[in-house]
Amino acid sequence: MFVRVVWRMLGGVRHLIGTAMTTVDIIEDGHAIALTSSGTVMRYHAIWLRDNAWDETTRAPGNGQRLIALRDIPIDTKIRAASVEDGQLCLEFAPENRRIAYDLQWLSDHAYDVVKRGDSSWVSDEISIWNSALSDQIPLADLGQVQTSPEARASWLGGVARYGFGKLTGGPVEEGALFQVADLFGYVRETNYGRHFEVRTEVNPTNLAFTGLGLQAHTDNPYRDPVPTVQILYCLENSAEGGENMVVDGFACALKLRDENPEGFDLLSRYCARFEYAGEGGVCLRSRRPMIELAPDGELTAVRFNNRSAAAITDVPYADMEGYYAAYRQLGEIIDDPAMEVTFKLNPGECFIVNNTRVLHARKGYSGEGSRWLQGCYADMDGLRSTHAALLQELGMAAE
Amino acid sequence: MFVRVVWRMLGGVRHLIGTAMTTVDIIEDGHAIALTSSGTVMRYHAIWLRDNAWDETTRAPGNGQRLIALRDIPIDTKIRAASVEDGQLCLEFAPENRRIAYDLQWLSDHAYDVVKRGDSSWVSDEISIWNSALSDQIPLADLGQVQTSPEARASWLGGVARYGFGKLTGGPVEEGALFQVADLFGYVRETNYGRHFEVRTEVNPTNLAFTGLGLQAHTDNPYRDPVPTVQILYCLENSAEGGENMVVDGFACALKLRDENPEGFDLLSRYCARFEYAGEGGVCLRSRRPMIELAPDGELTAVRFNNRSAAAITDVPYADMEGYYAAYRQLGEIIDDPAMEVTFKLNPGECFIVNNTRVLHARKGYSGEGSRWLQGCYADMDGLRSTHAALLQELGMAAE
Repeated sequence: MFVRVVWRMLGGVRHLIGTAMTTVDIIEDGHAIALTSSGTVMRYHAIWLRDNAWDETTRAPGNGQRLIALRDIPIDTKIRAASVEDGQLCLEFAPENRRIAYDLQWLSDHAYDVVKRGDSSWVSDEISIWNSALSDQIPLADLGQVQTSPEARASWLGGVARYGFGKLTGGPVEEGALFQVADLFGYVRETNYGRHFEVRTEVNPTNLAFTGLGLQAHTDNPYRDPVPTVQILYCLENSAEGGENMVVDGFACALKLRDENPEGFDLLSRYCARFEYAGEGGVCLRSRRPMIELAPDGELTAVRFNNRSAAAITDVPYADMEGYYAAYRQLGEIIDDPAMEVTFKLNPGECFIVNNTRVLHARKGYSGEGSRWLQGCYADMDGLRSTHAALLQELGMAAE
Repeated sequence: MFVRVVWRMLGGVRHLIGTAMTTVDIIEDGHAIALTSSGTVMRYHAIWLRDNAWDETTRAPGNGQRLIALRDIPIDTKIRAASVEDGQLCLEFAPENRRIAYDLQWLSDHAYDVVKRGDSSWVSDEISIWNSALSDQIPLADLGQVQTSPEARASWLGGVARYGFGKLTGGPVEEGALFQVADLFGYVRETNYGRHFEVRTEVNPTNLAFTGLGLQAHTDNPYRDPVPTVQILYCLENSAEGGENMVVDGFACALKLRDENPEGFDLLSRYCARFEYAGEGGVCLRSRRPMIELAPDGELTAVRFNNRSAAAITDVPYADMEGYYAAYRQLGEIIDDPAMEVTFKLNPGECFIVNNTRVLHARKGYSGEGSRWLQGCYADMDGLRSTHAALLQELGMAAE
């Protein structure tokens, strides 16, 4: 009898396979099997299959955590018998003499016997890159609505996950309202700036953000490691002349640089920059990370760009420094190009949120009569993505 | 007249140079200079020098942030005149017609015209790797003492920064005392587990940590991105049989794997693993990161290892999966080797802290009479390093 299996569909794009037509062959002396379906062959190793069993002696039934470690699986694990029955692959493992069933759809979703992307840099299918043309279709919602409607919340969070940016309107004009935004999806990341910080003109500013100066598009706190991956900026007053906000998709800019100057892109991703902040007592933050960060397989995972806190770059050898600076300048020009930016002026009770590892934000200088007062705080993208994914599951919706 | 310059020494190893003997030459048609001191030549580009000026029109005098962006520096920036006077390099830049002075010591500390390491993997000089031999010399202090003495605090934080692990004794046996530990250096990272969490046996555990099971050495929350980079575990009760804690230096283990099986090390660093946690309602956390993470220039920056939350690995092609699993098993064997671990049993009022991107922690199973109750919370290493660096500056001490 096969152990009862509870399948947990955690991610992966679903590819429908003709399960009725699937056949299985034991290959490589039992160290692997081959599933053939509609002429397509997908191989899976015995050790991978055993490690990914979902029976109740392998995974805790309640929380889904794995109860065993790899050390508990015999090193000479092989498949002794295999069959396809009722949409399930049924396997018998030696030397454990254990029989485990696998959902064919789950196996198809998690197939790894596929040709991988050969690109040296790429972005996930779960995101869309954008430029100023996004202006008319930014992820936009009413705060009260996303608080009360799970569907509205799922839709807006999905937009933020996909575009790295979103706006909310209709919120209360009161101090601390920004925490209601963080509560939609996660937890505030407290820093030396506090649980939140006031963005308005100060007499002795510890940070140039707390002046009326314009700020070039930047990611926040690149001198922190890990950086806060979400920033929320919430408007309480904005009657001053100027002070508009701009957002720019750093991934779009990095890919544009790659297309225009592949060697420059390579330099900015291959060498670490350095960032630092020591603008107040007791604080001496430093980091060493590339401006364009790639996963080992080339996925574009983060952009860091901030003229105010860039420290001396010392990890680029002399022979590459001129090319590095040229690429750094070119990336800045792309970021500054109005064709890449979405501009808006926040009204009191409105806010915006950015994925701070991807989307840069800027503001125009302001002065004159009137006042400008924003409150800001940090949070993290993993909580946002988690809340979004859990909402979709609860609502029985597929990811966009 | 040269602009008054305030030098800020933010990191970098100080190499004493014979400033009296230093001479300067303009090279590459003014695009660079060469400093010669005791027969050693160090070149610096004009654009790098201009970008790293510390005069008050380039850097805000109060907080040290850069007031200009690279776009504000002319693309054809060259050096028109150069001299060495009183330990300073004095330069005149064209076309800005700006004169700026640089401290020769600062230039030496930030030299980049040097041969870089050729290793494919390396660890920073600021850390020391260790094994079970560390047992007699772990960073250990009294909580009250590190709270009241800046010297004791600097010393203990320095130990935690260097070894990725530290222990405190003599703390109060009261709920929430762990926050006093976080307050020593930074801020709690709140998650779905709360600002803190209770580590004791639960009837319907959302996580296997909340049972009496033994736990293999692991890093916490690899399914989070960014992971919490610090974990604090604080003991309130520990009269049960068993329940000892072990810590293991994941960097030492990774380097041991590299020495024993370079190809396996390469596989674990070149391909992303996947992790996930969905053990409670509303939570669906997933990440895609390598088990061994390197900076683009090969610095070992993080280790992720957790059998309970490892998800199906789908980013390794079929041809490499068997080698990947063999390396994964071998890394686990190294981690499980008692020769790598430091073991201790916490008493009430004692706690330990780990750099969760580097040091794995484990516990032995416990049961029988008596009780075991720990409180845990997360925080971040950047705050710890920042507090340590600022303390050293205040105390006029150099880094260890």
